[in-house]
Order: sequence, then C-alpha cells, then structure tokens
Amino acid sequence: MRSLQTFRPETAGPLNELANILLRGANSLSPAERELIGTVVSAGNDCVYCQSIHGAVAACHFGGDNDLVEQAKRDPEAAPLPEKMRALLHLAGLVRLGGKHVTGETVERARAAGATDLEIHDTVLIAAAFCMFNRYVDGLGTWAPEDPGFYRERGEYLARAGYAATAKPAGRT
Amino acid sequence: MRSLQTFRPETAGPLNELANILLRGANSLSPAERELIGTVVSAGNDCVYCQSIHGAVAACHFGGDNDLVEQAKRDPEAAPLPEKMRALLHLAGLVRLGGKHVTGETVERARAAGATDLEIHDTVLIAAAFCMFNRYVDGLGTWAPEDPGFYRERGEYLARAGYAATAKPAGRT
Repeated sequence: MRSLQTFRPETAGPLNELANILLRGANSLSPAERELIGTVVSAGNDCVYCQSIHGAVAACHFGGDNDLVEQAKRDPEAAPLPEKMRALLHLAGLVRLGGKHVTGETVERARAAGATDLEIHDTVLIAAAFCMFNRYVDGLGTWAPEDPGFYRERGEYLARAGYAATAKPAGRT
Repeated sequence: MRSLQTFRPETAGPLNELANILLRGANSLSPAERELIGTVVSAGNDCVYCQSIHGAVAACHFGGDNDLVEQAKRDPEAAPLPEKMRALLHLAGLVRLGGKHVTGETVERARAAGATDLEIHDTVLIAAAFCMFNRYVDGLGTWAPEDPGFYRERGEYLARAGYAATAKPAGRT
C-alpha cells in the first residue's frame, strides 16, 4: 500500500484522508468497531494485506483481543459482540456483495439495536471504501509480507498514529 | 449522491477530491476515456445513478456520442474503440469482480497496446473507486431520478465544471 502511495501521491492524499475520517474521526462507533468492519469486509474479499493490517489495528484497539477479531472474520453472527455490532457487520457484508443486497430489513435490524443514521451511513461507506482498497491492493498485485510480526508492529503504529500522517504528501494537488 | 454529501460533508471532501484527480486531473488518458471506465464499471455493478450520470459526462466528452457509451457498456470488446481502451476496460471489468481476478496477462495486454504504468494504475483505481461509489449510492438506497433529461443536464455541467467545486465543503476536517 505504501509503495502505491509513493507511486501516486496525488491520489494517496484523499485516500488516506478518507480512511482517517472513517476510521479515526469523531464518531459514536469506536475505532475498534470501525476497524473491525473494515477487517471483516477485507476478509470477505480475501485481501490478505488489508485484513492482516486492519485486523492487527482492530485487535490493538480491542486491548489485544486477537481471538475476537478472528471470530468476527469467520462468523460475525457467532462472535461475542453486542447485537448492534453484529447487525452493522451484517450490513457491511451485504454492501460488500453489492449495494443492492441491502434491504430495508437490514437497516431496520441495525436501527432496532440502537444504531444511529450516522453509524449506518458510516458502516456502508467503510464497507464500500474497503471494497475499493481491497481491489486497489490486489488488482495491482501488491506484495503482502508473510511475517505476522510485520502486521503486529505496523498495526500498533497505525492504532496509535492513525492515517493522517501520510494524508497530505508533497505532491498533492 | 448530493444528498449523501450534504448529510456527511466530512467524507464528501476526500471523495470528491479523489473523483476529481482520477477523472479530471492531468493524465494521458482523456477525461472521456476515464469517465467511460467509470461508466462501464457502474453498469457492471448495475448502479443506475452512477452509470447514467457518468455515461452522460462521458458522452459529452466524446462529442455527444451516446451510442459509443452504450456500446461500451454492453460489450467493451465489440465497441469501436482503440485496442488500448478495450484492454483497459477489460482490466477494469476484472477489478470490478475482485482484485485477484487480474492476471499478469491482463496487464500485459494493456501494456502491449501502449498503456503506461500510470494509465494501468489509474484504471485499476478508477474501477476500484467506482466499486466504492456504486455501493455507497445503492447501499443507502439513494433515490435515482428517472428523467433522462436530468442526467443529460447534470452530465453537461460536470463535464464542464469537474468535481472540484464540491471538493472542499465548509465542514471538512
């Protein structure tokens, strides 16, 4: 991902800014919850790089609970999460398949579990954005490190620093 | 789309900026060619709003040749386009299905037809970005006007003005 950003700094600017607002901006969903949405979508899209790095960030925000992240990736409905999060992960999974898979019932379930309009909006946009990021990374055959230590260390850094540090490169238009 | 931007101006900023760089920034691919890539991907994703509005912008840039846009949406390989554009549309169609559908041969075909690394990069990112925009619009059940005149007029405006006008709303963080 960082090599893509170096190759095309003009697009890296808004891409990082979008990630930073969606994942780290002020929100009633915690960074842990938002990173988990991105991780589960990336796992569904079989993107090794994104699910590993954002899974590591999510685990960090969940106090190091890597098992919870793995459970959510395997089966969000069975994961020990509040009903609101399970409903939002279900919504995100349908967005991943395609926007038209979302029904009124999908949204109603999330709303009944206490999700606000902004939380529903941001869940849809996070899922849609990860469908972009996953395709960007894999469509250009970006090399993904195999060492779990890489993702753990980078995940800890991103959990601390967010995505804004690289959001305004020199070449930005 | 504009109602989504009003609801969440913070994310509208980077989304519009990304669209403007990809579709209107300095590039060896013409705005017509880049809008056509976005239109063909949106048609594949069955997103009425995006394929209508960007199809109208593309037709405008192609000197009003709406038939060419419709042909490319139906079957890019059969459309009267240069081999480079057919190869890039093929690449975009595979990115739409998922990043891992892209093979070395896909990229080699585009390169053999004269596509540069930046053109290949931007084709992948345009296709990926439209997979996001399509899911964003349809996942939130955005109402799409049925009147073709709406898309023609709005398309003419966007072909002229680009996407930057709304790229930096007051609420942007």
